[in-house]
Amino acid sequence: MAVNLHAPETLLPIAGVRLASVNAGIRYKNRNDLLLIELEPGSHTAAVFTRNAFCAAPVHVCRSHLQHGNPRYLLINAGNANAGTGEPGMQAARECCEQLAEQGECWAEQVLPFSTGVIGMQLPVDKIVAALPEALAKLDANGWLEASRTIMTTDTVGKAISRQVEIFGETITISGIAKGAGMIHPNMATMLAYVATDALIEKDTLQRVLNAVVEETFNCITVDGDTSTNDSLVLMATGSSGVYVGSTGLAVFQQAVQDVCLYLAQAIVRDGEGATKFISVVVEGAATRAEARAVGNTVALSPLVKTALFASDPNWGRILAAVGRSPVDALDVGLITIWLGDTLLIENGEPAASYREELGAAETRQEEIIIRINLGRGDAAATTWTCDFSYDYVKINAEYRS
Amino acid sequence: MAVNLHAPETLLPIAGVRLASVNAGIRYKNRNDLLLIELEPGSHTAAVFTRNAFCAAPVHVCRSHLQHGNPRYLLINAGNANAGTGEPGMQAARECCEQLAEQGECWAEQVLPFSTGVIGMQLPVDKIVAALPEALAKLDANGWLEASRTIMTTDTVGKAISRQVEIFGETITISGIAKGAGMIHPNMATMLAYVATDALIEKDTLQRVLNAVVEETFNCITVDGDTSTNDSLVLMATGSSGVYVGSTGLAVFQQAVQDVCLYLAQAIVRDGEGATKFISVVVEGAATRAEARAVGNTVALSPLVKTALFASDPNWGRILAAVGRSPVDALDVGLITIWLGDTLLIENGEPAASYREELGAAETRQEEIIIRINLGRGDAAATTWTCDFSYDYVKINAEYRS
Repeated sequence: MAVNLHAPETLLPIAGVRLASVNAGIRYKNRNDLLLIELEPGSHTAAVFTRNAFCAAPVHVCRSHLQHGNPRYLLINAGNANAGTGEPGMQAARECCEQLAEQGECWAEQVLPFSTGVIGMQLPVDKIVAALPEALAKLDANGWLEASRTIMTTDTVGKAISRQVEIFGETITISGIAKGAGMIHPNMATMLAYVATDALIEKDTLQRVLNAVVEETFNCITVDGDTSTNDSLVLMATGSSGVYVGSTGLAVFQQAVQDVCLYLAQAIVRDGEGATKFISVVVEGAATRAEARAVGNTVALSPLVKTALFASDPNWGRILAAVGRSPVDALDVGLITIWLGDTLLIENGEPAASYREELGAAETRQEEIIIRINLGRGDAAATTWTCDFSYDYVKINAEYRS
Repeated sequence: MAVNLHAPETLLPIAGVRLASVNAGIRYKNRNDLLLIELEPGSHTAAVFTRNAFCAAPVHVCRSHLQHGNPRYLLINAGNANAGTGEPGMQAARECCEQLAEQGECWAEQVLPFSTGVIGMQLPVDKIVAALPEALAKLDANGWLEASRTIMTTDTVGKAISRQVEIFGETITISGIAKGAGMIHPNMATMLAYVATDALIEKDTLQRVLNAVVEETFNCITVDGDTSTNDSLVLMATGSSGVYVGSTGLAVFQQAVQDVCLYLAQAIVRDGEGATKFISVVVEGAATRAEARAVGNTVALSPLVKTALFASDPNWGRILAAVGRSPVDALDVGLITIWLGDTLLIENGEPAASYREELGAAETRQEEIIIRINLGRGDAAATTWTCDFSYDYVKINAEYRS
C-alpha cells in the first residue's frame, strides 16, 4: 500500500543505547507491543510534543519529567493511547514510570512514558509492569529493527533509517524509528519518532537542533490536517562516540539529523491511510516563509486537489482555487506561476499557452507528483508533503471502530 | 441523495421581477441552461462575491457594473464557469452584457453576468447571444420554480423558498433560489443564489442587510473548505409593494431575508456531494464570535470527524482532537463540555461519567446530528453547518473529469 516505501533490512546500533521489544498483551496477541529504550548515564535528551490542547497523560508526564535531569529509560506501548483518561490515566503513566525506575535503578523522573493506540481506555498498568523484567533482560544494542515494528499500530511498513557522517574526520552514527502520524491515525493515535546518536553534544544545543529540524521535517507533512493527542519526537545523544559537536561541527550534525527526520516524516506520508501518491507542494517566491507554508498547506489539505490527484486528473482549476483562498493578503494572481512536475500549467495567473491536457495527465499519472507554485512576491520558499485522498481513506476512517 | 431536502412545489412571484429559462445549448442537451432575470426600473441590487483571489471573469464584470447605477438584467448560464479564461473570458462576459443591453434597451453596465460550470473553457458567446430573443420573449413573473432548475449543475434537487412577512400590517414577499456551493462543486463551479423582494428599501441599507445576513448564513456552511472562483449572492428589491423598510421595519425585514438565506445555505449542505448526514456544530461559551467560528470550522472540516459520522460512529476522540487543535490561544481543556444531541459526551475535558457508547451511537445514527461544544471561556457562540464525508464524495470528486 505505501508509496515507494520499504522497511530497511538493517539499522546501525548506537553506542550507549539498548532496546527491547516484548509482548505485554495490551491489545495485540501475536506481536510485540511494548518497547523499552535504555540510555547510558550522561546521555542528553531533547523532545517536542503535540501542540494539541488535548494532550494524552504520557505527554504531560514526559514534559514534567524532562524538567528533572537526564532520562535513562523510554517506555513505549502500542495499542492504548492513554488519552482522554483523566486523572486515572495520569496515575497510570506515573505508576509505570515508578515501577520501571525501581527495577531499573533510577529515579521515576528519569523515565519517559509514551503511548499510542485507542483513545479513552484506561491503560492496563498491570500488564505493562508484568512485562518489565523480560524487557530489562532483553535489552540489546541491536534491537532497533524489531523496535520499529513494535511501535506500529495501523502502519503497513516499519519506518526506520540509519546514517553516518564525519565531523573532523571522526564518524558519528544516527539511527531513528517512527510510526504513523496521529493526523493519519488519531484513534490508533499518534505520530511517535525516536532518533538517537552517539555524538557528544550539550543538552541545550541538542534541543535547539531538534527545534530547527522539526520545522523542516515533521512540521512540513500533512495528511488531513488533524493532529494527535500523543504526537512525540525524541532526539537522544549518548556521547559514546566521544565526537564532540561544538559550534564548528553543528551544521554537519544538524543536517544529518534533518536527513534522518525528513526520511521518517516522508515515510509517514508515504504510508498515509489509503495513499496511492506522494505529493510535494513546493511554494516559492513568497514574501515570507510563513506565507509559503500557508499556501502549501492550503493546497496540500484541499480534499478537492487530493481526490483529483488520486484520479490522476491534472485538475488545475482546483489547484488554482486552493491557492486563491489561501490566507495571504493582497495576493496578485497575475504574478502566479504553477508547474506540475516539469509542465508549465499557469503563467501570470492564466493557463499557459503551451499547456495541453496530455502533458498534465502524464505528470499526474506518476506515483510521485510535484506541484510547484511561484507567488512572485519575494524570495521565501517552503515545501509541504502530503498524499492523495482515496476510497480507502474513507473506508479506513469510517470503518475503524465498526 | 440529499439529506431531508425536497424541491418546493410552488414559489411566490415578486412584483417587478420576471424570469425566463431557455436552452442555449452551452453544455446540456435536454434541459435549460440560460436564466434571464429582469428587474423593473428603480429596483435596487446588493451583492457579495467570492473572496477567492482567483475570480472568474463574470465576477470582475459584476463588481465593475455594480458601480454604475441599478441593474436591469441578470444573465446566468450553467455549464461553463468562464473562469481561468483570461482576457478573452473578460471580453466574452462583456460581449454578452452588451448584446443583452442592446436587445433589452438599457446600458451594458445595467447587466450583471454570472456563470457556473466547467473551469478553463471559453464561454460560447454566440450560443448565449442567439438565445437572448427567446429569453426576452419568455420573461414571466411565475418563472421562479423553473429558474431554480435552470441554474443547477450537479445539484440533485432544485433549491428555492418563498416567504412573506408583515411590516406595520403590510405584506412583503421574498423569493430565493440557489445552486450547489462552489466548495462542493468547484469544477462545475460555484455557489449562486438570487433572492428578490418587493420591499422598498434604500440601496445602501439593502447592502448592509445582505452583509449581515451572509455572515449568519452562507458564511456558516462548509463542506470541504474549498471556495469557488464564481460564488455570488444577489439580493434584489423592486419596491413594487410600496412597503417602505425604514429603520423601524428593518429588523423584521432582515430576519426574513436571513430565514430565506439560511434555508438556501443549509439546502446546499443537505445536497453536498455524497452527503448522508446533516451536521450542526454549535460552539458556545467562546470568548469571541471569531473564536467560536474557528472552533466550529475546525470540527466541521475535520475529515476524521466527517468520516466517523458517515459511519455513524460516535468517535468522541476525533471531536476532542479537532477542538484541541483549533486556532484558539490558551484553550483550557478542563473547561470544555461537549454534547452529541442530548447526550453529554465530555465534561470538564474528560469523558462524562454518564456516557455510554450506546447513547452516542443512537445520536450518530440520526440523519441530523448536532455537536454542541461549550468552551467555558465567555458568552460568544456560533453555529457551523456541514455534511459527512462518504465514499461518494471521493467517487464524485475523483471521477468527475474521467
